[in-house]
Amino acid sequence: MNEIVAVDWGSSMLRAALLSEDGRVLEERSAQRGILSVPAGGFPEALQLTCGEWLQGDQRLCIISGMAGSRQGWREVPYCACPAGFPELTRQLAWIESPFSAARIAIVPGLSCEHHGVPDVMRGEEVQIFGAMSLRGGTDSGRFVLPGTHSKWVRVEQGRIMGFATFMTGELYALLRTYSILARTLPPDDGPLDADAFTRGVAQARSSGSLLRSAFSTRTLSLFQRQPPHVMPSYLSGLLIGEELRAQQFDATDGTITVVGSQQLTLRYELALLSLGLPARRVGAEATWRGLWLIARSLLGNHP
Amino acid sequence: MNEIVAVDWGSSMLRAALLSEDGRVLEERSAQRGILSVPAGGFPEALQLTCGEWLQGDQRLCIISGMAGSRQGWREVPYCACPAGFPELTRQLAWIESPFSAARIAIVPGLSCEHHGVPDVMRGEEVQIFGAMSLRGGTDSGRFVLPGTHSKWVRVEQGRIMGFATFMTGELYALLRTYSILARTLPPDDGPLDADAFTRGVAQARSSGSLLRSAFSTRTLSLFQRQPPHVMPSYLSGLLIGEELRAQQFDATDGTITVVGSQQLTLRYELALLSLGLPARRVGAEATWRGLWLIARSLLGNHP
Repeated sequence: MNEIVAVDWGSSMLRAALLSEDGRVLEERSAQRGILSVPAGGFPEALQLTCGEWLQGDQRLCIISGMAGSRQGWREVPYCACPAGFPELTRQLAWIESPFSAARIAIVPGLSCEHHGVPDVMRGEEVQIFGAMSLRGGTDSGRFVLPGTHSKWVRVEQGRIMGFATFMTGELYALLRTYSILARTLPPDDGPLDADAFTRGVAQARSSGSLLRSAFSTRTLSLFQRQPPHVMPSYLSGLLIGEELRAQQFDATDGTITVVGSQQLTLRYELALLSLGLPARRVGAEATWRGLWLIARSLLGNHP
Repeated sequence: MNEIVAVDWGSSMLRAALLSEDGRVLEERSAQRGILSVPAGGFPEALQLTCGEWLQGDQRLCIISGMAGSRQGWREVPYCACPAGFPELTRQLAWIESPFSAARIAIVPGLSCEHHGVPDVMRGEEVQIFGAMSLRGGTDSGRFVLPGTHSKWVRVEQGRIMGFATFMTGELYALLRTYSILARTLPPDDGPLDADAFTRGVAQARSSGSLLRSAFSTRTLSLFQRQPPHVMPSYLSGLLIGEELRAQQFDATDGTITVVGSQQLTLRYELALLSLGLPARRVGAEATWRGLWLIARSLLGNHP
């Protein structure tokens, strides 16, 4: 039976899944072996330690996406240039060898695009997008959002990724929350989401026109006791996500926006989009496994 | 002879000047005694240690502006609400006592304003604005910018401060430069300003529509070696200052914009404004002493 090993190798985490031939998750593992913690040359061993017994036999196929293909990763894999569909992506897989395993191991290239002379890049999100399209049949055109430390806004047309833009939303939230003057009036823990404070933040982001300005309102609303301290992390989260939405140009043809990621984040984006009158659909993190499985299946088809 | 003691007491620095009756600076001192480093109750002593011998005699007048009037300062002085002219400001001075001195000591109130239910505040910049208007005769209406950790954009009409907005520009620059992923591809020192890279950053800020997006270009331009590393701090500075300018609504009636502050910062703002076709005039940090002197002189006039 042709089981498949799917690996999502990010900066801080390594996640792996053993998938059945028809794409079901048989077992999942995750380890604090993100690429930033792996020494040069240590990637085969890190994979072996995480899921070595899944990689036995020369018939086994292992597909890796994410930062493992970056300059600091297992091997630097050149970006695939947009517009790019699924065939371009699979044609540019980088095949690598592990001294610990006879398995066929490939790294998925990231994508690059360019706007007015400025490049943009992604590694891993492209797999999630193809996975999400497959999980949500009929969603092969429109806007996709992949929220996170560096959120990606992606334009898809007839199954091809036409271009995208990166927003440092999650990282700026963490910086402001941890190191800025705003930290002085915020409680130590974020606590549960307060939907009212969050949507007030989304609205404030739109009216103030820049995060540089809206951010300071987190301080003054606290100083003047206009909002209780425990809701202010939700307000700040609304400011950041609202700023990301403010910078998009939506028009009537956009239709429903597809938000792909963890439930905690996609629920916030859905709430923010709905507060602006924009419909959203959510796809969970299983899009990664689906995308990696699609790649593996296309290879098995080519090498029967 | 009625010499005056002028004190600019910020979060990290205490600066003091002995001014002649006609406003000339006779002597200046600065000390690492910003309000954040002074223990509660320790303010009279901190002032005494810095310039105690200037404060001898009950005829001596000492005017203090800045964070000394904040909740963490010598005494919390209520904000003066905008619109506010020079008379409102001087009427709301807070008179305080020092056990070390018989001098008459006053703290200048900060200003507050409100936009759509969100308050904004300043402490110290109001003194600089009145000082700048006095130094630049005839500049009693228009836009004033006070760049810094928290930049202030101020609207003045016929000598009255009508309203203002705070931008966390300097603080966000420091956060991105020190703690974000961008720090990994930036050189350890900022180095001298590279005007081309700076104005490219200003232009990029305008076209990208949000700092959340433009910031990431600092990384990709480095990754793709489109700009040499040593100019990237200038580029990032251009992104931040350009974002602040992008968020302003300029119109034909704005005329020349007055930028008040240190030469290093005001030159950057002048360059950024000129690159957008907007004329600017610069006023140096001496605006603080001039503003404090104006306040003292108005009191001496009232108490001959």
